[in-house]
Amino acid sequence: MAELSPVADLDDLKARLRQLPFADRVAAEAARARQASLTKPPGALGRLEELAIWLAAWQGREPPRLARVVALVFAGNHGVTVRGISAYPSAVTAQMVANFRAGGAAINQLCRIAQAELEVIALELERPTADLSSAPAMSEEACLAALNRGLATVEPGIDLLAIGEMGIGNTTSAAALCAALYGGGGNMWAGPGTGLDAAGIARKAAVIDQALACHAAMVSEPFGALYRLGGREIAAMAGAVLAARERQVPVLLDGFVAGAAAAVLHALEPGALAHVQAAHLSAEPGHVRLLERLGLRPLLQLDMRLGEASGAALAIMLCRAALACHTGMATFTEAGVSSKA
Amino acid sequence: MAELSPVADLDDLKARLRQLPFADRVAAEAARARQASLTKPPGALGRLEELAIWLAAWQGREPPRLARVVALVFAGNHGVTVRGISAYPSAVTAQMVANFRAGGAAINQLCRIAQAELEVIALELERPTADLSSAPAMSEEACLAALNRGLATVEPGIDLLAIGEMGIGNTTSAAALCAALYGGGGNMWAGPGTGLDAAGIARKAAVIDQALACHAAMVSEPFGALYRLGGREIAAMAGAVLAARERQVPVLLDGFVAGAAAAVLHALEPGALAHVQAAHLSAEPGHVRLLERLGLRPLLQLDMRLGEASGAALAIMLCRAALACHTGMATFTEAGVSSKA
Repeated sequence: MAELSPVADLDDLKARLRQLPFADRVAAEAARARQASLTKPPGALGRLEELAIWLAAWQGREPPRLARVVALVFAGNHGVTVRGISAYPSAVTAQMVANFRAGGAAINQLCRIAQAELEVIALELERPTADLSSAPAMSEEACLAALNRGLATVEPGIDLLAIGEMGIGNTTSAAALCAALYGGGGNMWAGPGTGLDAAGIARKAAVIDQALACHAAMVSEPFGALYRLGGREIAAMAGAVLAARERQVPVLLDGFVAGAAAAVLHALEPGALAHVQAAHLSAEPGHVRLLERLGLRPLLQLDMRLGEASGAALAIMLCRAALACHTGMATFTEAGVSSKA
Repeated sequence: MAELSPVADLDDLKARLRQLPFADRVAAEAARARQASLTKPPGALGRLEELAIWLAAWQGREPPRLARVVALVFAGNHGVTVRGISAYPSAVTAQMVANFRAGGAAINQLCRIAQAELEVIALELERPTADLSSAPAMSEEACLAALNRGLATVEPGIDLLAIGEMGIGNTTSAAALCAALYGGGGNMWAGPGTGLDAAGIARKAAVIDQALACHAAMVSEPFGALYRLGGREIAAMAGAVLAARERQVPVLLDGFVAGAAAAVLHALEPGALAHVQAAHLSAEPGHVRLLERLGLRPLLQLDMRLGEASGAALAIMLCRAALACHTGMATFTEAGVSSKA
């Protein structure tokens, strides 16, 4: 399909999540059979074998291909920064977007190495969300608009999508979302983000607890949590994850903030993330708890905590390695190698 | 230096290990300073930052370069296979060497993706070592010859070296070496290798215990353990790790068997592996114990257990990503990004 229709409202979102396409079993079985024929002990390539089968299953194609790989970086600004919950000022969000566009950020270098196109989507940076500790971050309408913006970025013809973000203050937003979805207070979900010290983390946890008290039962429903505690880039990432599934594009999800966005879909529909791999485990301490709840096992664990889809870009390289083995290796028969004794 | 002199005997090996060159502190400091200036929160690229600094430190050059990256795969055959300790017959070693040369193995695809040259060094495959459970695997002379063969493969002008192996039966040899170096019996160090079942692993553990009983105090000295329990490819990997250090080439060490080779140097001289990164944590269960004793933290953990330097080849990609960020990112000043609040 050329265009995905925008999500009209929460009921529409729920209906779409109930009708998600599943993995292609025929392609997955064919990929699994090919893996078993290649010159290596069965399973010896570990998660590289899983990745090849996962790409085949979600692309519905054996062999899968990685001709067009896209990294989406969504950027948003957060009113909660007035509460002193970030090590950097809000102005850095727009400055980093300019840096992405000029090619000077980590994600530019990583996309070049991983042979991925980088698309940066800045979402009304001049209009930060409201301070979530005392008001809804967004209206329902603004949240849906951002979600639909993310949905629309996923064009037809993409073979693999990496999804990440930039937004000063957004680990506070993500932590508040996790607390709303999974319980546990600010202490359980707040971390250093871009580099808070212990006092800063305690302040951030208190701000999250204030937000939970302020919104109370209104955030027990996942979409309510998203518009009241989230941010435009977080809603947009949720939209992109949904669109990827509807277009049968496998997704590499970056770190903690991207995970919190995906968690909203997971809370609405437990099978919503079947097409998603967690690219890496972030050093942000809430991430390990979040991935546990999402049932996702990270591919990489490199103590990274940058965002920008940087971990997802590294995981693209693993997918390329997996595909190269899957398509390029000789079979036992082709190579004249004896099989098991 | 154009040629490294061969190791004459154990005393010569010990003397060389006492005179190893250290990392270049000036290059390391310059690399660390550059990392601090780049447009990201300090430390946010985690181990990618460490890798960039490590490359600079051991190459003695800031910025480091990855123009010539070489993967060495050493192959050897093992007499202990008569004891039924492998899921595959010994003939597979030579068949896989042919597969490497024809371009059909996993390592061929991974080297292509990682832009590394592959060099395969087959060590007298037609003359397996003796059955280590009842006799020394090699003579001291044969062991030194293999070590020197490995030493000679490390030419001048290499920027990064990946070191791995192929050899049916060699996880038994590596496990026996670990047991000799660190204590613990066959049960502690034996694993499935290419795919033994539980009964096979128990048989392998018993063979290792017989080897330990047979060689007794003769394997309490690390070089004695190497020639009595090792294999030619294991001795050659030890030689290559030593030569890399003498030539100031950083090393990515592949899995359990490569780790056991490096452990011999580490047992002779605790600082011998300062230039080495453990590329990945193998699924072979002894590997996690071995890396703990070597004080090495693996870069990747992908449930791989193939050998062939496959994990090390993936880690080359991480080094390329690290270097791309290190050299390609803008500084805060260049990009006009505000630093910490």
